[in-house]
Amino acid sequence: MLRVMRAAVAVDGRLSVEDIDDPVPGAGEVLTAVKACGICGSDLHTLQHAHRMVDAAREMGSPLTFDPTQPYVMGHEFACEVLELGAGVDAGVLAPGTLVTSMPVVLTPDGAIETTAYSNRYNGGYADRMLLTAGLCLAVPNGLDARRAALTEPMAVGRHAVGKAGVGPGTTALVHGCGPVGLAVIADLARRGVEIIVAADFSPRRRAVATAMGATDVVDPAVEPGIEAWRRVSAGGLKPLVQFDAIGVPGIIGRAMLDAPPQSRLVVVGVCMEQDSMQPMFGIMKELEIRFALAYDPMEFTDTLRVIAEGEIDVTPMLTGACGIEAVPDAFAALGNPEEHVKILVEPGGPSGIVAI
Amino acid sequence: MLRVMRAAVAVDGRLSVEDIDDPVPGAGEVLTAVKACGICGSDLHTLQHAHRMVDAAREMGSPLTFDPTQPYVMGHEFACEVLELGAGVDAGVLAPGTLVTSMPVVLTPDGAIETTAYSNRYNGGYADRMLLTAGLCLAVPNGLDARRAALTEPMAVGRHAVGKAGVGPGTTALVHGCGPVGLAVIADLARRGVEIIVAADFSPRRRAVATAMGATDVVDPAVEPGIEAWRRVSAGGLKPLVQFDAIGVPGIIGRAMLDAPPQSRLVVVGVCMEQDSMQPMFGIMKELEIRFALAYDPMEFTDTLRVIAEGEIDVTPMLTGACGIEAVPDAFAALGNPEEHVKILVEPGGPSGIVAI
Repeated sequence: MLRVMRAAVAVDGRLSVEDIDDPVPGAGEVLTAVKACGICGSDLHTLQHAHRMVDAAREMGSPLTFDPTQPYVMGHEFACEVLELGAGVDAGVLAPGTLVTSMPVVLTPDGAIETTAYSNRYNGGYADRMLLTAGLCLAVPNGLDARRAALTEPMAVGRHAVGKAGVGPGTTALVHGCGPVGLAVIADLARRGVEIIVAADFSPRRRAVATAMGATDVVDPAVEPGIEAWRRVSAGGLKPLVQFDAIGVPGIIGRAMLDAPPQSRLVVVGVCMEQDSMQPMFGIMKELEIRFALAYDPMEFTDTLRVIAEGEIDVTPMLTGACGIEAVPDAFAALGNPEEHVKILVEPGGPSGIVAI
Repeated sequence: MLRVMRAAVAVDGRLSVEDIDDPVPGAGEVLTAVKACGICGSDLHTLQHAHRMVDAAREMGSPLTFDPTQPYVMGHEFACEVLELGAGVDAGVLAPGTLVTSMPVVLTPDGAIETTAYSNRYNGGYADRMLLTAGLCLAVPNGLDARRAALTEPMAVGRHAVGKAGVGPGTTALVHGCGPVGLAVIADLARRGVEIIVAADFSPRRRAVATAMGATDVVDPAVEPGIEAWRRVSAGGLKPLVQFDAIGVPGIIGRAMLDAPPQSRLVVVGVCMEQDSMQPMFGIMKELEIRFALAYDPMEFTDTLRVIAEGEIDVTPMLTGACGIEAVPDAFAALGNPEEHVKILVEPGGPSGIVAI
């Protein structure tokens, strides 16, 4: 009697599309149909570097709740339609048919908080169906479609990083990297009225999207270092600066510390899973501040959905492709080329190849 | 007609005691007799790593005002007696005989700000006499003696670092390293009423001084990691924590990031002149914040003199030795052993060996 569904299953660094058992909603849970789920750079990182995540968690003494050598289904940027309610869920509050999104966490029946998608128990959105905790579901307002609602999660990451940055009157920004995280940072900086937002990326396509999302100046670091472009438009470098590392590869932090003007701040939002190096001397001589940012809080997540639904941020320029579950491995490969795509949405039942949207 | 004076002259990594020309006060300057000058760990670092400072300054694009391949006289923690006034200095404001201290900077006749001691033009306090800018001199109040007044500078460094830390109600502290900078941090934490101050150092002598300066718990990291000691006395690690790196050697930042509880802060006040490495992943997963601290501002410096003069901080436990200029090279060597001394004061005209005080 168990139903099966299609899912892009990761195990030990490999991704394959398979039939897996349908999840069954427990008390307080809802079974949903995934309508759209964005592919996140973290998923590409995780597939490649999962052993490092495990090692890091062990080294930090964290309890390991996720074993990447066992099967798991990623996908944590989702918009879903409610299908079935588990025990104790009030249909008056969360009626089947409702389009919802949620932070990618579940409250398990045993009372623990578990990350969806980076879990061997709770599959993410690269599958036909997934479980959500009813109490964490947010009904998508204002007629916003599933594609745009699915971007709540990455946009909340950008909003949280900008919140960490402590942007005040006159603050200017230099964003290193115009992948989805960098673009989310840019969009939130623009929403807050930051007047100088310099965005640096090697890819012409991503620079064009950065401009569409609100960057005031874009620069190809192969032609002009980002810091030089920022200095050119910031009174010779005298305006207060926050740099954002939205790249997450070794060397960015060290370079940003070297380039930084005195008393400036660096927000690290790109996830670098490798050992990195830097010169503390630069930090000391210039009294720099480094703030690491991860995820968002529930209020930030909820308000990001509102911001998108009410049109304060239009995520449309970031949406570049869509595909069905069968094409998820191809989509992972395609995202390796920044000229091809920015954000690909997985739409269960969608085309077996990637289509431009 | 030029007079000469004794000075410990550094050049190209070597230190020797020589006769050099007496400085002559220009307009707005005063010639002073050095009464006491503390030897700072930065001086030991500088002698050893001066080429790195120069390289770092070049890499940052800073104008190089100090050439360590040419002779210079260090000593930036001084208390001096006013001898002669340069043109335009009002004897009513700064009478000869007054005991003064000052931030170790001079305003040069051509209007520039130059660091004293790390300068080829303005000698520091490892000499019989030195020039100070009259407008920056602070008369030592309350009958405070030269030995204690000389500690204004390092204690201001600690105060500034604690200011950077953003200590609030319930904040606890873990100080790595109980050299003079770590001790200054501890003293200021205690002055601000921080109730849990854990100090970690391999040296029993330095741990004893840490206790005298206000540490509530001291730990030998060879026996118990500092973070474990902190956890033991901080509700199992649930209290808000600021860690201070007052060591300044590679590996401390990375280790502190690994050990740090989530959402905690690290203030880097130890000057590490070498390349260092860390795992950004730890910073991200725990949303850490790293603040680099350097020196102090004029208000912090001035108020630190008051704090010492009024007895809010008693620096006496930190004072362990004194010597004349002839013994400066020996004192540099002695400071390599943390069991021997904490702070040695150079007292021109003092003994040709190091004496305990």
